Amino acid sequence: MQAAQIFYDTLAVSLATGPDIQDITPELNELVRQSRIANGVLCANAVGSTGSLTTIEFEPGVVADLKDAVDRWAPKGMPYAHELAWHDGNGHSHVQAALMGPSINVAIRNRRLRLGTWQQVVAINHDNRARRRQVEVTILGTAK
Amino acid sequence: MQAAQIFYDTLAVSLATGPDIQDITPELNELVRQSRIANGVLCANAVGSTGSLTTIEFEPGVVADLKDAVDRWAPKGMPYAHELAWHDGNGHSHVQAALMGPSINVAIRNRRLRLGTWQQVVAINHDNRARRRQVEVTILGTAK
Amino acid sequence: MQAAQIFYDTLAVSLATGPDIQDITPELNELVRQSRIANGVLCANAVGSTGSLTTIEFEPGVVADLKDAVDRWAPKGMPYAHELAWHDGNGHSHVQAALMGPSINVAIRNRRLRLGTWQQVVAINHDNRARRRQVEVTILGTAK
Repeated sequence: MQAAQIFYDTLAVSLATGPDIQDITPELNELVRQSRIANGVLCANAVGSTGSLTTIEFEPGVVADLKDAVDRWAPKGMPYAHELAWHDGNGHSHVQAALMGPSINVAIRNRRLRLGTWQQVVAINHDNRARRRQVEVTILGTAK
Repeated sequence: MQAAQIFYDTLAVSLATGPDIQDITPELNELVRQSRIANGVLCANAVGSTGSLTTIEFEPGVVADLKDAVDRWAPKGMPYAHELAWHDGNGHSHVQAALMGPSINVAIRNRRLRLGTWQQVVAINHDNRARRRQVEVTILGTAK
Repeated sequence: MQAAQIFYDTLAVSLATGPDIQDITPELNELVRQSRIANGVLCANAVGSTGSLTTIEFEPGVVADLKDAVDRWAPKGMPYAHELAWHDGNGHSHVQAALMGPSINVAIRNRRLRLGTWQQVVAINHDNRARRRQVEVTILGTAK
């Protein structure tokens, strides 16, 4: 066992009207590089209740399929109690984001996120307008 | 980089027959305060296979919409193999909880959970009876 | 507060054609034992974009119910944009895995994962062929 070190920072991600899905893996690996942590874990959470994080193979087909799926799991056209009270038209956004979840963790090995070759970390905006979303990143590990 | 400190504790959350959703953000922020950790990450997991954790805007509309959605994703009325064997009527509860996921992590910045203004951490009971659920909380970070 | 120690390792899990669900709790508790960490948190992520992690009561009924549910949430028979481009027949696998999520965290208390009595950590293969999947495990905590 070794003593764990900590590093943290914030990413800002510009996202279009939801569902929009952006690859944030390069930015996360850049934070891993800045952290000088070689082995450990990266914890990330999307700030705001209509954003989420997960991993996918970031290619246009899967991106389109996942957008279709989240709109199928919580469609825009349904009556939502949130909209009856707030009239902001994003009842589906809240349900989608709660389903997908706000946070993930990914191992760091040899100074890189330990993902599959065709696996990327993505930030998703579910809101019914473009959003500049913050993702909080905390890295724990050792320099060797 | 700084050395990471650790603090941990258990929350007990009283929840009604599922799906029931309770805001646990004040209790989590109280644990952050007790931890004396200023910057880091809070990891939490629901103990028991019919509970889950996520974040939502905790207002009555979204709470009602998310209850409706989890009951739509895994309805009570369907035939579940779990029930054929165990006859405890909560086959849907198990599927809902696995879908939503048992754990989340949220960054701590300046001695507070780093959530959106309208974003709260919630514990969900999916079981078909009221449950007093335990949520295990582990906080890692630095005092400055 | 105490200083956090870190330990990490990789599990390999043999999984049949998806959806296949395997209990990895014994292997994770063995890593906790090896880590000599008594109290803290275990972070795990599935490597590869068609795998996921969650917790369930690992008994045949719930396993069957969850397989049925993920196939209902993202059925095999639908037209997926991923398949139109790649013709590998696993468009549903990618959507299912993104939905379930690649990572979880579970508290460690008294040298054991802090789960419910009928709650196990499972690795899920959603791919349309058998896969030997890697799960990266990072353990943070203290020896006392």
